[in-house]
Amino acid sequence: MEQTAPGRRGRGGGGAARRAERRATKVELVRFIERNIPNLEILNEEALAIIEANAETLLEEIGVNFVENPAALERWRQAGADVLGERVRFPRGLVRQLCATAPASFVQHARNPDRNVTIGGRNLVLAPVYGPPFVRDIEGGRRYARIEDFRNFVKLGQMSKWLHHSGGTVCEPTDVAVNKRHLDMLHAHMTLSDKPYMGSVTEPSRAADSVEMSKILFGADFVDQNTVLTSLVNINSPLTFDATMMGALEVYAAAGQACIVSPFIVGGAMAPVSVAGTLTQVLAEVMVGVAYSQLIRAGAPVIFGTFVTSIDMNSGAPTFGTPEAAQITLGAGQLARRMGLPYRSAGSFCGSKLPDAQAAYETANTLNIGLLAGVNFMLHAAGWLEGGLVASYEKFVMDADQLGTLHRLAAGVDMSASAQAMDALREVGPGGHFLGCAHTQAHFKEAFWRTELLDYKPFETWEEEGARDTVTLATARVKKLLGAYEAPPIDPGILEALDAYVAQKKAAVPDAFL
Amino acid sequence: MEQTAPGRRGRGGGGAARRAERRATKVELVRFIERNIPNLEILNEEALAIIEANAETLLEEIGVNFVENPAALERWRQAGADVLGERVRFPRGLVRQLCATAPASFVQHARNPDRNVTIGGRNLVLAPVYGPPFVRDIEGGRRYARIEDFRNFVKLGQMSKWLHHSGGTVCEPTDVAVNKRHLDMLHAHMTLSDKPYMGSVTEPSRAADSVEMSKILFGADFVDQNTVLTSLVNINSPLTFDATMMGALEVYAAAGQACIVSPFIVGGAMAPVSVAGTLTQVLAEVMVGVAYSQLIRAGAPVIFGTFVTSIDMNSGAPTFGTPEAAQITLGAGQLARRMGLPYRSAGSFCGSKLPDAQAAYETANTLNIGLLAGVNFMLHAAGWLEGGLVASYEKFVMDADQLGTLHRLAAGVDMSASAQAMDALREVGPGGHFLGCAHTQAHFKEAFWRTELLDYKPFETWEEEGARDTVTLATARVKKLLGAYEAPPIDPGILEALDAYVAQKKAAVPDAFL
Repeated sequence: MEQTAPGRRGRGGGGAARRAERRATKVELVRFIERNIPNLEILNEEALAIIEANAETLLEEIGVNFVENPAALERWRQAGADVLGERVRFPRGLVRQLCATAPASFVQHARNPDRNVTIGGRNLVLAPVYGPPFVRDIEGGRRYARIEDFRNFVKLGQMSKWLHHSGGTVCEPTDVAVNKRHLDMLHAHMTLSDKPYMGSVTEPSRAADSVEMSKILFGADFVDQNTVLTSLVNINSPLTFDATMMGALEVYAAAGQACIVSPFIVGGAMAPVSVAGTLTQVLAEVMVGVAYSQLIRAGAPVIFGTFVTSIDMNSGAPTFGTPEAAQITLGAGQLARRMGLPYRSAGSFCGSKLPDAQAAYETANTLNIGLLAGVNFMLHAAGWLEGGLVASYEKFVMDADQLGTLHRLAAGVDMSASAQAMDALREVGPGGHFLGCAHTQAHFKEAFWRTELLDYKPFETWEEEGARDTVTLATARVKKLLGAYEAPPIDPGILEALDAYVAQKKAAVPDAFL
Repeated sequence: MEQTAPGRRGRGGGGAARRAERRATKVELVRFIERNIPNLEILNEEALAIIEANAETLLEEIGVNFVENPAALERWRQAGADVLGERVRFPRGLVRQLCATAPASFVQHARNPDRNVTIGGRNLVLAPVYGPPFVRDIEGGRRYARIEDFRNFVKLGQMSKWLHHSGGTVCEPTDVAVNKRHLDMLHAHMTLSDKPYMGSVTEPSRAADSVEMSKILFGADFVDQNTVLTSLVNINSPLTFDATMMGALEVYAAAGQACIVSPFIVGGAMAPVSVAGTLTQVLAEVMVGVAYSQLIRAGAPVIFGTFVTSIDMNSGAPTFGTPEAAQITLGAGQLARRMGLPYRSAGSFCGSKLPDAQAAYETANTLNIGLLAGVNFMLHAAGWLEGGLVASYEKFVMDADQLGTLHRLAAGVDMSASAQAMDALREVGPGGHFLGCAHTQAHFKEAFWRTELLDYKPFETWEEEGARDTVTLATARVKKLLGAYEAPPIDPGILEALDAYVAQKKAAVPDAFL
């Protein structure tokens, strides 16, 4: 399951080579999860058929709005939809039919080909938290995120063997102008990590920059023929597709780059308070977004996304790790599989303000359900805190450690003759113990998932060492990882060209902070 | 799903009646979980057949030891087993055939009939932590458990709407003599709770006391004809059945009372380091224990138990919430269902010394898998800390709160016309919001699971209120619950008889503390 990264030689002599050697033993390369266990299917055929029929009714009777996007309205008109003002209604079956050209899975390439991921099928690709304007750690407390934080999270992602993807806006670098920060973010992913990454969606021109910079990194021809970007396109639920997000989708789909089409729903506010009603809305919205991507370019890779929380009816706050969110995550996975589309959902979701027990219960509830829901791309898989407002340094490494458990659980049960262990059972017999038997000696090193963070020591040892809680252990691990980090080697000419692109783009327009 | 307990009138006038009224609104009575979602089946037919065949081979070739128990050896001899010294070997199929008389499910009666539980089928009954010699809370730290702690945990269990069962040794009352503490423990369960409870297993005479005291509580005839005790009989893995535990099982089975027959396995020490090997051993051990109960009394209720952790090969410490434990829990559930037996496994397991994030990750991993593994009786469902050495006050209420999520998840998705919410979707339409719509107004109160502990408040509010973490919130909840606790009414004559039984038994022999 695990393999050590090939020892890439650093450029520039013995020191770099030695550093590369050291790194080669430190950063393990773990392939994305290929499930060998079944998905959990909580909806039966009848329930699925009802939801699918209701979604068609919704699209036929109510429809959706494509806001400030006359070109989109024209595309829909030509595709056979009924357009009135910005409202688009769809004859039954039209949208689902248009979705049929979207691929069931696709490869997203990384600049290190060993890091390529295949999104779809029985696979699960894990990516870090996306979007928080704040960061938090023990020493600095809660504060606005800066580009230095952004780079630190990219480094932590690169150092995690269980994260397969570098993600996108791992936090918002609020000290960089709004109209330029995408350049710094892309530059960080491209140079500090060799894992796949996401593009900007906050304006079509920024999506275009994402494609252009990727062409510098991968070569223009390669990007024309391969998917090197997966980007997050949110739907303005309920039933609204705004020009910004659709503009980004148009850029990416036209370039053959992947988008996650993802309703963003706090249940009870942007969707009905019921699971069945929410699933109906999710399906309708995703189908329209996916179909629209296929109108831009048939065959463009696209992911069925679902981001759903419920609302706390006392405070109006979003809640995480709840059973209703679990049911929606499981049900939407079934709907996505019936459409033959890759599925994005779940993450290290929690509402807690601290990386405490609440955060961990909520996160573990969500991670486990995400695995069993057949999620193919899990954004936010590490580092999410406080409803997504905060990227937590400590929780990032805590969650990343837990992601190892998903790999093991997904691998299923080894039924080889060796794993059946009949010789060990014969050798030890009643009243004996297995610690010293041949089978244990041969297999104990890889027999069990091993944490790199949690504490299993006896009480007395643990107390002598300072009675550290999980957050304290995590602080130490963050420092250790950032201290040990080394950038993956990059061609100096490519680095120069990326630097120049960013500098030129930044110089071309004044800073904007709104 | 939830119903308020019938307003039982207290005895002795208006004050008691008013108190009873108040309590009737505070302590909700929630029925045990009846699953409406599928189990997660990670082993295919071939794997299950291999494990079952290997278990038969193990029983045929290696066999088990019944230690210091000549009567048991004689019973096995007569049943057709091959007995040599204390070793018992079994012709293939014999043990499984003997298990066939054990019931697929049974009712365990509570003194409040509304609290009766049906153990088996698609049900899940939740019971608190069992066995810790220590307790911990924020204010008192970690300390030996006392009878006052025991009573507090029984009270917290009674106050929890999500715990269906009062459990057994919720902690070890170390200030009471070893040979007498079972009397105080039983007395506490019988008088401070009206939920079902467990009996003593530390000596056959204590099992007999458990039956006798239950006869005082329920009436002798009732106990003769009904199951009012479920008790925990551990197997001394590997493959060893000691006289103490078997002696207790003999008492209970003869009295028609239920036992959980449960291998106690730290994988790598008491079983092979592999999942398939451990499952083979678990199946062999449980089959022998269940079959033995049926030799004592055909039809005696018995539960297929599995307590499995893996070992940390660095420290030798047991680990919890790991993927290997999850696989064993899921696989053993499949094996139990193929035998048509109720299944016990999982719990609020964790290795952490504190009720922190580690504890919560490990616990949530285990609780979720327990639900999906088809567990019918979940001991340790709340309060477990530090590998079971500690009963944590705070974690008890934290875990108990999380148990609510299992109820909701297990209920499945409501597909009623109302839950389909098509009218709400029509009413709100694109760009609107659902907070004020008729469907939300009609359903928001019961739409989502609601925590009674966790914090969803906005950051600023939370900070103003003292930036409390989960443990701090839990401390407050513990105090609130213990302060609001009122004992369920009991017939004064029965109480007097229980008091007298305990006093007489205690007076009959000197204290023993070993």
